[in-house]
Amino acid sequence: MLLNEERLTDRIAKARLDAIVAATPENVTYVSGFWALPQWIRRGPQVFVLWPKEGVDSAEIITSTSTLDLIADQSPWITRVRRFGAFHLEPIHREPRDQVTRRHLELRSCPEHEDAVEALISAIREARLDRGRIGFDEAGFATGQVGRLTAQLPRVQWVQASSLLREVRAVKTAGEVDRLRRAAQIAETSIAAAMAVARDGASEQDLARVLHTQTIEEGGEPVLGCIGFGERSALMNVQPSGRRLRPGDVIRFDVGGRFRHYRADVARTAVFGPVPHEVIRYCRALLTGIEHACTMIRPGMPARQVYQEVVGAVRQAGIPQYRRNHVGHGIGLDGYDAPVLSPESTEEIEAGMVLCIETPFYAPGRWGLQVEDTILVLERGVERLMTTDGRLLEAMT
Amino acid sequence: MLLNEERLTDRIAKARLDAIVAATPENVTYVSGFWALPQWIRRGPQVFVLWPKEGVDSAEIITSTSTLDLIADQSPWITRVRRFGAFHLEPIHREPRDQVTRRHLELRSCPEHEDAVEALISAIREARLDRGRIGFDEAGFATGQVGRLTAQLPRVQWVQASSLLREVRAVKTAGEVDRLRRAAQIAETSIAAAMAVARDGASEQDLARVLHTQTIEEGGEPVLGCIGFGERSALMNVQPSGRRLRPGDVIRFDVGGRFRHYRADVARTAVFGPVPHEVIRYCRALLTGIEHACTMIRPGMPARQVYQEVVGAVRQAGIPQYRRNHVGHGIGLDGYDAPVLSPESTEEIEAGMVLCIETPFYAPGRWGLQVEDTILVLERGVERLMTTDGRLLEAMT
Repeated sequence: MLLNEERLTDRIAKARLDAIVAATPENVTYVSGFWALPQWIRRGPQVFVLWPKEGVDSAEIITSTSTLDLIADQSPWITRVRRFGAFHLEPIHREPRDQVTRRHLELRSCPEHEDAVEALISAIREARLDRGRIGFDEAGFATGQVGRLTAQLPRVQWVQASSLLREVRAVKTAGEVDRLRRAAQIAETSIAAAMAVARDGASEQDLARVLHTQTIEEGGEPVLGCIGFGERSALMNVQPSGRRLRPGDVIRFDVGGRFRHYRADVARTAVFGPVPHEVIRYCRALLTGIEHACTMIRPGMPARQVYQEVVGAVRQAGIPQYRRNHVGHGIGLDGYDAPVLSPESTEEIEAGMVLCIETPFYAPGRWGLQVEDTILVLERGVERLMTTDGRLLEAMT
Repeated sequence: MLLNEERLTDRIAKARLDAIVAATPENVTYVSGFWALPQWIRRGPQVFVLWPKEGVDSAEIITSTSTLDLIADQSPWITRVRRFGAFHLEPIHREPRDQVTRRHLELRSCPEHEDAVEALISAIREARLDRGRIGFDEAGFATGQVGRLTAQLPRVQWVQASSLLREVRAVKTAGEVDRLRRAAQIAETSIAAAMAVARDGASEQDLARVLHTQTIEEGGEPVLGCIGFGERSALMNVQPSGRRLRPGDVIRFDVGGRFRHYRADVARTAVFGPVPHEVIRYCRALLTGIEHACTMIRPGMPARQVYQEVVGAVRQAGIPQYRRNHVGHGIGLDGYDAPVLSPESTEEIEAGMVLCIETPFYAPGRWGLQVEDTILVLERGVERLMTTDGRLLEAMT
């Protein structure tokens, strides 16, 4: 199970909840193991998971009839399913031999509910939670739906719970770490592939094509692909353009796809030919910040302390004016999981967190430099989940 | 401008609105031309567009400071911008030479608002709309945000407007049609590339890798990649697995990426070696449904009539028991734009609509067959936006 069930149970108990309802794609996949294609690739289609405090055996997935094939094929750890809406299949003439089809047809034999909210209400009633205290993942409900719930289940005490689920997701299980490690390494290999075509006259788009193709070759899915040359490297969200590589350019990569639904977010800086000495010196200082984070991070440390130490290390290493809104964040099913490593953060570092530590530096009109590494917090120290460090790369001239 | 401004102005007038606020990624990009990376690749980050009835010159984009580089680089047709939140850049030492950086710095000189909703409220007040009738794109607001708006702007009359924007988006401009045509043709080429590796022992995942790589090579982005062999072709959302191709298998593709933000959704069926004659006969009948749609669709026709005619044509052509929840939908920035070609639809076909016409047929445990084509509705008839038709493909044995 990818879910950290112990942590979920603990947070539900601390919030004195009788149940929680997951609703965003990330939270649905996280608590159930069910990845519903339409919910992930579009805005609108809904899936809910009702998770009573008793745990996984009493939990239920609420999804549209048209997605039951995915449940049959994925075998999520929650096996109780409630469906809504119609979807026509041909009647069968003989008992199918394959297990996925058999499970699919079995799931279709459940009663059909009108819509997602109606199905959720019936699940809550059947679980005798209609006088309970229920945490709901407010970020995943559409306008008006919460009103329908409160009107039809007036005795339920509703509590917003998106932040509770975010907090549970912050500490990764071993299975999640495996996927995040692989996702990060796919990003590294993809950057290396793009660097192999970084030569005079290659465009940002040329590099991006190679980057994304490599991600696919390795079994990943492209998501983030910021690649900027020269003055464009200072655009924080730079989208690859026809801008061609010229001697003296900095190249900034801030990239990462998904591997089995888990995200990568990796940054590297490269140079093509001679660049101002400042660039080399600054890159070393930014790397020092990351290295310092890796030696200093421990469970129990406030996230804002990590921020202060990393910014301090970069300043001391050669960029005295270094300023930054944050120096990293968690990563998981979402590209920005908890915690945020910022001066305002009230979060605390815990063993099992997977963090992207980053020290970007944007000098508008000149260049942008960035190192971003993925690390796992251990009981005593950190484990790097990557095979390279953030040293300045050089394109072949 | 990709936006159909005339249609937007008309619908705003018909609904007697003084302004409209776009909030979902699709609607923001549609009305402004601004594509905000964080809003598209994650759930949570927000962008709003305030569009007063006076039109584009009085409209305003409301976005986070950290995305202003994208506005500078994309030059959307709305030029007024309001920003919220902080994002640090190094101070500049000399006036930058490139236009994008200059525009980026100019945008940063606007006042900084606390958050998205606060910025929206200030935009509404400055536009003297605080006693107006405002349509809001409810699908793009987070829980509690509408409450803040109504509390702080108590004299505004708020009207839900997501469906109005969906209706505007249904009739495409020439620029949108160009992108949709290219997106559909990239999907076709990607299917052809995947078919070239469809041989004995190749896995669904092998074909998917080639499919997505081809999409990237052609300048697209992978999104949908359902590829199923044999009994798995009957799973409607089939995600590519290690299942290997065997003689006698049907292969079903339901795929499509994005090209410059616009979606493709194309389906084709192939066979590998000898298959039951039924498969060939049924595929012909399903194709007849599509062909009939292409000869019969005219502006002014009720969407449900298209449904009835297509289902009727498939039945007459050899599948008398054919049943289906819908036979297609619009396509644009979203994979499912208006209209829906279903028996319940109250929509009407209009010239300029781009439609995916589809006739899937799922026989659980045996095979799934599907044809899905993209067409443009003209004043007199339709134009196919694709280069191939949905004839059954054959993998080389």
